[in-house]
Amino acid sequence: MSVLVVGSVALDSVETPFGRADDVLGGSANYFAASASHQTEVQLVGVVGSDYPMEKLEPLKARGIDFAGLEQMEGESFRWRGRYRHDLNSAETLETRLGVFSHFKPKIPVQFTDAKYVFLANIDPRLQLEVLRQVKAPTLVACDTMNFWIESRRADLIELIKHVDLITLNDGEARQLTECSNLVQAARWIMERGPKTVLIKKGEHGAFMFMRDEIFFAPAYPLESVFDPTGAGDSFAGGFMGWLARTNDLSTANLRRAVIVGSAMGSFVVEGFSITRLLEISRDDIERRVAEFQQLVSFDRTLNA
Amino acid sequence: MSVLVVGSVALDSVETPFGRADDVLGGSANYFAASASHQTEVQLVGVVGSDYPMEKLEPLKARGIDFAGLEQMEGESFRWRGRYRHDLNSAETLETRLGVFSHFKPKIPVQFTDAKYVFLANIDPRLQLEVLRQVKAPTLVACDTMNFWIESRRADLIELIKHVDLITLNDGEARQLTECSNLVQAARWIMERGPKTVLIKKGEHGAFMFMRDEIFFAPAYPLESVFDPTGAGDSFAGGFMGWLARTNDLSTANLRRAVIVGSAMGSFVVEGFSITRLLEISRDDIERRVAEFQQLVSFDRTLNA
Repeated sequence: MSVLVVGSVALDSVETPFGRADDVLGGSANYFAASASHQTEVQLVGVVGSDYPMEKLEPLKARGIDFAGLEQMEGESFRWRGRYRHDLNSAETLETRLGVFSHFKPKIPVQFTDAKYVFLANIDPRLQLEVLRQVKAPTLVACDTMNFWIESRRADLIELIKHVDLITLNDGEARQLTECSNLVQAARWIMERGPKTVLIKKGEHGAFMFMRDEIFFAPAYPLESVFDPTGAGDSFAGGFMGWLARTNDLSTANLRRAVIVGSAMGSFVVEGFSITRLLEISRDDIERRVAEFQQLVSFDRTLNA
Repeated sequence: MSVLVVGSVALDSVETPFGRADDVLGGSANYFAASASHQTEVQLVGVVGSDYPMEKLEPLKARGIDFAGLEQMEGESFRWRGRYRHDLNSAETLETRLGVFSHFKPKIPVQFTDAKYVFLANIDPRLQLEVLRQVKAPTLVACDTMNFWIESRRADLIELIKHVDLITLNDGEARQLTECSNLVQAARWIMERGPKTVLIKKGEHGAFMFMRDEIFFAPAYPLESVFDPTGAGDSFAGGFMGWLARTNDLSTANLRRAVIVGSAMGSFVVEGFSITRLLEISRDDIERRVAEFQQLVSFDRTLNA
C-alpha cells in the first residue's frame, strides 16, 4: 500500500552548535515523505510558492514520492528560521513566514482519494477535516498537531480526533490538550474521544504508544551526537506509517514494530541537516538500527536467583 | 550474598498534591535497605540522633536488615522537609537539618567488613572513601552522589570513582560532573576514570546502563498516579544491588535483569509515602512488574513486510 501525507513543504534555515544551513528542504510533509519512502510509495499534498526550488525535490521524486498533489501558487513559500542551542531539545524560532501556506486549501488529486494510509501532518485541524472529506475509505488515518492549534482551534481539534484512528503528539502537547499531567491519564482522555491509538513522543526520552489494552515504549536511540533535531517527529511518523502501509497489518505486534521503525528514522534524521541523512541511508541501515533497538532494551526475565 | 549500604537514616516530612506525611522514615540507606531486603540480607551503616524513633525500624529488622552499624549519637537526627507540586519531577526542599549526620564518621562493624556487595549511598565522597578503606575484598562497589558533592568535593569524587566498579547518578548530575551534555559522551567520560558501569537515572524517563561495549535502557514504569517520588533513586539502587548480591552473577545479562528489578522497586516506592509500599509488596509482586516491563518494551524484529 502507498501512504498519503498532507502537510507543509517549506524552506528551513537552521543554526545549531555544529553549523548552519540556509533555505534547505523542510516542512512536515517533506520529512514524512522522505522517511516513509524507505518503506513504500508516498503521495504528497501541499503547497509552495513561485520561489520554491522545485529541482530540489528531484531526489525525492526519484525515491517514489508522487508530488501530483503539490500545488505551486503565486507568492512566497513557507519559510522557517530557527536555532538550537547546546541543549538540542527545543528550537528557538527566529522567524516564521507562512507565505502561500496561509492560503493552503488541500485538494486531494482524484488518483489519491482511494488512499488507505493517510497522515494528516501538523496543519489547521479545519484543513485536516477537509482532507478527511476527500478521501474515500482509508484503512488508517493518523494526525499530528501542535500547541498553536490546541490553543486556537481546540473545538475543531476535538472534532477531528473523533474521526482519526491514531494521533501523534509530544508530551507537552498531550498535557496541554488533556489538562492531565500524567501521560497514562492523558492518553486515556484522548482515547475516550476517538483514537484507538495514541503515540506520545518525548524527544530524546523516547515514545509511548497507548492502545486500549496495552502500552508500548520505545526509547530514543542513544546517539553520541545530535546534529540537527529538526524533523525528528515527522520522520518518526513517516517510518511508522510507511511500515504500516508497506505491511498492511494493524495487529498490535506490527504497530510495535512500526514504532521502532519510526524511532530508527527519527534517530537517523537528526544526524544531519534537513533530510540529508534520509537520502543516504538504506533499508539495511534501518534494519540494523532496529536490531540495535532490540539489543538496547532486551533482558532475560527467566534468569533466576 | 548480603549487601552493605552506608548512607543517611533520616526523618522526612513531605507534602505532595495528594497529602502530607510528617517525620516518616527517610534517608538513602533506609530506602535502599527496604528495597534490597526483598532480595537478600542487608547490612546498614548510618547514624541517628537521640530523638530517632528506633521502634519504627522494627519492621525493617523483621525483614532481615541488620542495624548493627547504626550508631545513635547525642543530638538531633537528620531531618528533611520537602514539597512536590503537580509536576512531581522535582522536590522543593523546604528545610534540611543535618543534626548528628554532619558529624557522621562511618564505622563498619567488623562482622560487615567482608561484605562482597557494597553501596555507598549519597554522602560526602571523603566518607565514601573511608568506607572503602574499611571493607576487605568487595566483589562490587557502587556509589551514588549528588550535585552538592560534585560542586564542593569534585577532586574527592574523582578520586572515589577510581575505586568503584559502578556509579549511579541522575542525568543532570552526569552532565554537571562531566561537562558533557550528551549522555553517551558523559558515560564514556566517567568510564575512562574508573567505573566499568555507569547507571544514569532519568526519573520518569527511565534509566540507562552504560558498559564498555553495550548500552541498556530501562523505561520508567508508566504509573497512572505517582503519590510521592521521594526515595525512587535509592529504591532503584536497592533493587539493583539486592538482585546482584542475591544472584552473585556479574554477567551483563544479569546486570540488565538487575536494572529491571531496580526499576520495578522505584515504581513501587512512589505509590505511597516513605517506605510504606516497600513493606507491603511481595517477591511475586516484583516478578509480576518485571514481566510487565518486558511486555512494555517487547517487539518482534522478525516481522517482515
